[in-house]
Amino acid sequence: MPQVHASPVAPRVVQSWLARYQAVRAQSQALCAPLLPEDTVVQPMLDVSPPKWHLAHTTWFWETFLLKEYAPGYEQFHPEYAFLFNSYYNSLGSRVNRADRGTLSRPPLADVLAYRAHVDAALAALLAEHNELPATFYELLELGLQHEQQHQELLATDIKYILSTSPLAPAYAPLEEKVASTPATSSLSKASWLPVPGGIYRVGFQEEGFCFDNELAAHEMLVAPFELQNRLVTNADYLAFVEAGGYRDFRFWMGEGWDLVQTQGWEAPLYWVQRNETWHRFTHHGLQAIALDAPVTHVSFYEADAYANWAGARLLTEVEWETAARYFGAATSGGTWLESSRFDPQPLPADADPTACHQLLGDCWEWTYSAYHAYPGYERAAGALGEYNGKFMVNQLVLRGGSCATPESHIRVSYRNFFHADKRWQFTGIRLAR
Amino acid sequence: MPQVHASPVAPRVVQSWLARYQAVRAQSQALCAPLLPEDTVVQPMLDVSPPKWHLAHTTWFWETFLLKEYAPGYEQFHPEYAFLFNSYYNSLGSRVNRADRGTLSRPPLADVLAYRAHVDAALAALLAEHNELPATFYELLELGLQHEQQHQELLATDIKYILSTSPLAPAYAPLEEKVASTPATSSLSKASWLPVPGGIYRVGFQEEGFCFDNELAAHEMLVAPFELQNRLVTNADYLAFVEAGGYRDFRFWMGEGWDLVQTQGWEAPLYWVQRNETWHRFTHHGLQAIALDAPVTHVSFYEADAYANWAGARLLTEVEWETAARYFGAATSGGTWLESSRFDPQPLPADADPTACHQLLGDCWEWTYSAYHAYPGYERAAGALGEYNGKFMVNQLVLRGGSCATPESHIRVSYRNFFHADKRWQFTGIRLAR
Amino acid sequence: MPQVHASPVAPRVVQSWLARYQAVRAQSQALCAPLLPEDTVVQPMLDVSPPKWHLAHTTWFWETFLLKEYAPGYEQFHPEYAFLFNSYYNSLGSRVNRADRGTLSRPPLADVLAYRAHVDAALAALLAEHNELPATFYELLELGLQHEQQHQELLATDIKYILSTSPLAPAYAPLEEKVASTPATSSLSKASWLPVPGGIYRVGFQEEGFCFDNELAAHEMLVAPFELQNRLVTNADYLAFVEAGGYRDFRFWMGEGWDLVQTQGWEAPLYWVQRNETWHRFTHHGLQAIALDAPVTHVSFYEADAYANWAGARLLTEVEWETAARYFGAATSGGTWLESSRFDPQPLPADADPTACHQLLGDCWEWTYSAYHAYPGYERAAGALGEYNGKFMVNQLVLRGGSCATPESHIRVSYRNFFHADKRWQFTGIRLAR
Amino acid sequence: MPQVHASPVAPRVVQSWLARYQAVRAQSQALCAPLLPEDTVVQPMLDVSPPKWHLAHTTWFWETFLLKEYAPGYEQFHPEYAFLFNSYYNSLGSRVNRADRGTLSRPPLADVLAYRAHVDAALAALLAEHNELPATFYELLELGLQHEQQHQELLATDIKYILSTSPLAPAYAPLEEKVASTPATSSLSKASWLPVPGGIYRVGFQEEGFCFDNELAAHEMLVAPFELQNRLVTNADYLAFVEAGGYRDFRFWMGEGWDLVQTQGWEAPLYWVQRNETWHRFTHHGLQAIALDAPVTHVSFYEADAYANWAGARLLTEVEWETAARYFGAATSGGTWLESSRFDPQPLPADADPTACHQLLGDCWEWTYSAYHAYPGYERAAGALGEYNGKFMVNQLVLRGGSCATPESHIRVSYRNFFHADKRWQFTGIRLAR
Repeated sequence: MPQVHASPVAPRVVQSWLARYQAVRAQSQALCAPLLPEDTVVQPMLDVSPPKWHLAHTTWFWETFLLKEYAPGYEQFHPEYAFLFNSYYNSLGSRVNRADRGTLSRPPLADVLAYRAHVDAALAALLAEHNELPATFYELLELGLQHEQQHQELLATDIKYILSTSPLAPAYAPLEEKVASTPATSSLSKASWLPVPGGIYRVGFQEEGFCFDNELAAHEMLVAPFELQNRLVTNADYLAFVEAGGYRDFRFWMGEGWDLVQTQGWEAPLYWVQRNETWHRFTHHGLQAIALDAPVTHVSFYEADAYANWAGARLLTEVEWETAARYFGAATSGGTWLESSRFDPQPLPADADPTACHQLLGDCWEWTYSAYHAYPGYERAAGALGEYNGKFMVNQLVLRGGSCATPESHIRVSYRNFFHADKRWQFTGIRLAR
Repeated sequence: MPQVHASPVAPRVVQSWLARYQAVRAQSQALCAPLLPEDTVVQPMLDVSPPKWHLAHTTWFWETFLLKEYAPGYEQFHPEYAFLFNSYYNSLGSRVNRADRGTLSRPPLADVLAYRAHVDAALAALLAEHNELPATFYELLELGLQHEQQHQELLATDIKYILSTSPLAPAYAPLEEKVASTPATSSLSKASWLPVPGGIYRVGFQEEGFCFDNELAAHEMLVAPFELQNRLVTNADYLAFVEAGGYRDFRFWMGEGWDLVQTQGWEAPLYWVQRNETWHRFTHHGLQAIALDAPVTHVSFYEADAYANWAGARLLTEVEWETAARYFGAATSGGTWLESSRFDPQPLPADADPTACHQLLGDCWEWTYSAYHAYPGYERAAGALGEYNGKFMVNQLVLRGGSCATPESHIRVSYRNFFHADKRWQFTGIRLAR
Repeated sequence: MPQVHASPVAPRVVQSWLARYQAVRAQSQALCAPLLPEDTVVQPMLDVSPPKWHLAHTTWFWETFLLKEYAPGYEQFHPEYAFLFNSYYNSLGSRVNRADRGTLSRPPLADVLAYRAHVDAALAALLAEHNELPATFYELLELGLQHEQQHQELLATDIKYILSTSPLAPAYAPLEEKVASTPATSSLSKASWLPVPGGIYRVGFQEEGFCFDNELAAHEMLVAPFELQNRLVTNADYLAFVEAGGYRDFRFWMGEGWDLVQTQGWEAPLYWVQRNETWHRFTHHGLQAIALDAPVTHVSFYEADAYANWAGARLLTEVEWETAARYFGAATSGGTWLESSRFDPQPLPADADPTACHQLLGDCWEWTYSAYHAYPGYERAAGALGEYNGKFMVNQLVLRGGSCATPESHIRVSYRNFFHADKRWQFTGIRLAR
Repeated sequence: MPQVHASPVAPRVVQSWLARYQAVRAQSQALCAPLLPEDTVVQPMLDVSPPKWHLAHTTWFWETFLLKEYAPGYEQFHPEYAFLFNSYYNSLGSRVNRADRGTLSRPPLADVLAYRAHVDAALAALLAEHNELPATFYELLELGLQHEQQHQELLATDIKYILSTSPLAPAYAPLEEKVASTPATSSLSKASWLPVPGGIYRVGFQEEGFCFDNELAAHEMLVAPFELQNRLVTNADYLAFVEAGGYRDFRFWMGEGWDLVQTQGWEAPLYWVQRNETWHRFTHHGLQAIALDAPVTHVSFYEADAYANWAGARLLTEVEWETAARYFGAATSGGTWLESSRFDPQPLPADADPTACHQLLGDCWEWTYSAYHAYPGYERAAGALGEYNGKFMVNQLVLRGGSCATPESHIRVSYRNFFHADKRWQFTGIRLAR
């Protein structure tokens, strides 16, 4: 089970837990509100899950790990739902193949919403009636909230992918405000380089509150002096790479990345298309011209790395990233989060302070050149939750900092996200180091 | 273009054409009425298309071949729909890959229904305002009706497949009447053998009215004397084959069929599952115990052929089937059709006349041991409709007689259906010959 | 077991059987004599088997069906060879996957030749010592000879494919004679059309001697009058189709053929390549310029059919082909066979009689538009040899007449060869009908 | 280009370079001497290359990087060989697909040996005639020798795999000496744990002579105190894991490893098979009973990691491994190398010192839990040799220490080998840490 750092979480007052629970649950459903039932059922690629599935799977998590264990007399909503909505827990028996999630039209969205209401009522009752639940219950409650927030990010990115497959380029939501038309040239000056001194730094979770088990144990690392750019790479920056033929020159690429460029015909980030000789990209607001000053996003590790090579720089390691974040006090800086409903990383103001480090948190997940491995002293929990993180700790790369699809309360400087090097459907971006 | 036999079709009075058009169109929508929007969008295997797609594609057919050609000032519903809903006409440009039909949540069902209404209104107006449309228009009108009826059959079978993939085994419709519980033993006596004398017979379309181009030219064939069974093979008959180990003995099987038995793990017809040691099958009414006296259905050619080998008999050729159908006057016999809303082949009465030939039309398509090839003198039409039938005339087998998912007015004794030997999701059955 | 027609084969004198046996066996080895050991082991595509495998498999056939059954005290050469060299007989147990034949470097060629010598000695001894073997033995002996001849044809075509994969374009054998350089234009006049009157014809094996079971039972067919061309389609003819854009126009193609044209990038027959803007083709004698007057070969059914459509004609059915062959007395006409060691279909003389029907036998297998199905009354034999032909009788097309890689004594007018519609590595050609 | 550390290599006297060159080249050919031509051409899986290809590719390396650049008037052996024998250098143009290496019977082994002789003669002449070649020439000469040694290891392991695919289990070489029959129980006592103190250590190449570019730059790392076992995990150790059901319990496995266990049916290390209820394994000497005291080998990272989890331990990181190797003075310890011709890791003597660290070098490559990434300051060389290492620096894991198939002079404590986590055909083994 993902561990809670140091001192055990003090059971908060019932009201507060319930309020948090209801807020998080409501946020998941609010994300799906603009969808039609048809949008909630399809799975256009293996990485994407149908929104209906996310809504049900998160509910299954509450039912399985909390209600069945701690709510006396809890009545299961439907006997088949455990088979239908288990994601990957071998401990909990067989389940629908991941590739088949998009073939199941039933249960329909309405039944999934009834499932959510059933579970929400039971959990509210449990919290209301039982003031003295064991500490493990509250740890699971915290974990369930974090888990549901993770699926909120996936909902945001999976919905984008689902809508993108239609040639109609449908908008998930209208643009709420007048977005400045894309200027012919960028208003941002060149990124500046910020030095971080070398030394022994402590990395990993070292604060109060919740963390995932993969952020532990905190440990010391020797870090050589390095520099990083004060902002994310922009679309204007990246466009220069595209136009310089970056996708046609193998010298910048990892071998397995170059194979993908050729077999998949990659010519630009995911969602970029040309219309009338201008690059556009599909967004939650339909097809939009490229915003030159906004951070480039939807790039794979291979593209991030190739861009860095082309630019004569490199990506950060995760230790460097966390060290820089602590060094520059990232925890206090603003950023674009899920709650903004922008669903797109946002440009810096043209007058942003060139000596400050921007966009470390929010906007885009930053690919690091660090494998997602266990920290020293990491141990898998016993039972089903031991499968939460540990079994993925090879063959993937760490991303840091959260994105415009991450709930703001979900992130920390020690937070470790991870994806395979070829993935592009998350809001992934690039920061350079040297 | 699918040809109309012999004398050109006399333009009927407008009222009659319009009434037929509206009846056929209404039937397609009625078939989808019990569905939820979620059911209309998924594609759980390549052969199946989403119901939403069927509703749109048939509409596209009217728009493309009739309205754009014959309705002055017709305004296209949406410029992208031709790309989205063209099925396989290379003549009409690029289109969504067949494998991607189930990834498109948009346009949603509501928009497709609006598309249907738009086209229906335009066609009704065209028929009302223009009494003197050219003969080719009426030929296309007839073809459009036939085409839409073909998709009604696919709707019925695709919906069944879609609902079957859910472990919830949802029912498309309740069983309307009390269906007798399955008796422990069959009430039918053994099938009897009916002889057909040899001779030169004329096969192919030779009546008045509409036929597809693949039923032409009618031609004479020398047929040796043969016998056929007076009814379809029943579930009880087939169960004996299953229980005798028919799926474990390669000697009965074509080589490519045996490969499928092993790689796909076939142990019984599609939709058969065991519950409490009894064979059940998924139907439009949910999971039901096997009805022993009903015709076996959802078998591939390989299974039909293996069964026949095991039973010491063989399948008919399509020439034999048509000869027998003409010889026994099949045109007049009853059968189960789409209009019955039973969606299942029905048992013969226990006292059915053993000297008559039953179930030739309706209930189940009968696999023949005849390749789907062009008849002598066949010619592909010019233009897009030349792709309607001709390009499929290799590697498939002919099926005859229609099924419980076929509109009754759609079938003829000369009608040639065709599928690859491994297909099982249609209402396909078996009749023995020797 | 492949049947022997009508009267049982009279046991011939030992000398004659032995002489035939030794001649056929020697011919297999002579075909491999120009090969290096390296050439005998590879399998560059699934349809091709390593020559070493052919030499061993044919030997396994003798050992399994004759020596083990009829030679008292016969000692098996090696206990693992039955597993290694069984081709597709489920009756005879498990075996190496077809796809893995090219991964086995051992046993090496030398051991396979020792295996052949061992079996040849045992069979010679059996024939020498036992004059009164049962009739079934001689039927199997005949079948073994026919079987080995079939593999000689495969050896010739598989060797060609194997050598073709090297960019070195190695020659199997030097061109023995001065082959006329390809003239800029063809010296042949246009093919003429020969009529065949309609009527009831008898098809299938109806002579004395051996036939395969798939040529039985002979039966009568009603044939409509038709015309066929007096020679095979030439490279010059086919080049006109290529240059007219035949591979870029879907209208001429079966749907599944058109898919292959696009996914495989077909632009010409197998083995055709352009060098210095001239079409060449890989042959047993290395890369050669196209011989304009020679029959086109190495085309799939799809290409043969598309060519015929483009030319405003069609292919023959197998009944028409056999009827024509009997009508024109094909049995007496010459042709190019394996024994010529030319390994290439040969041009007609420019002064060939335009009223005679040429090239029916030898030169190229002629694709027919007939599915490879059982004849009326066909029955699979009991035991392993029931798998020889019967289990392939669906999804393939019949080819007739033999080729330049067929032993001359192997063919008959009733002989039915069969391949899937996409196969191109045999010496397959085209004859037009209308 | 792989870099040479610190001070440039002083041009050695010609004699010495030539002698080394000839010794290395002779070693490659000696490895292939026991093979038949058939063995040199097959490619039973994608990771394996035909021995003929290795012999030619290493020769192509000399021709391309040295002779063409530095030998005036050098005449290329064959114009097509650059296409045939380039491995993965995009800089050097198109090449045979890796998957097709086993389809090419030509050029045959004899021609490849002639190619080797041609190049060897030219290189000897170059060394003899030109005493004053530039320093870069000698750097390339060194690199060519190292490169050929790497292919010697691949030859040894690829040959093993090739021979293993035959059910005949052929021996590459007889066992030269009486190998003790496997005792029923292990004679080794339990492995002991050796502590390594924490501190700041310098890792990466820091000696004189040659290293690959991936060993640079040497850099300091903070290492926490740890313990490692004094020897490799043995077959007896691993057998306990197998017999305890380790391959049937997902809890020990990484998720992607568990998928492989199930889809590939893994039940034991590669090459293990049961005969008469005893585990045997395929070796260069044919099928042999498991030697209980020998190190387990041919395990994937997934198996190494699962074993460590089961044993309550973990794998080392590469930094820990190198630190331990330097700490215990691995450079001086013995081990089993390619030169021993044993082709199998060897047991420790039963009386080996339990306080010493054994088998760090030689015997088995040790999987580490470290991703194969660039060291700080790593830069790809310009030109084709920039593709030598750099483009593989993601998605693979580091292995350390060399194996019984590694030439002894090829290894260093800073040497970094790398493979994907699923690979098993190298001599890979396990050492535990905690």
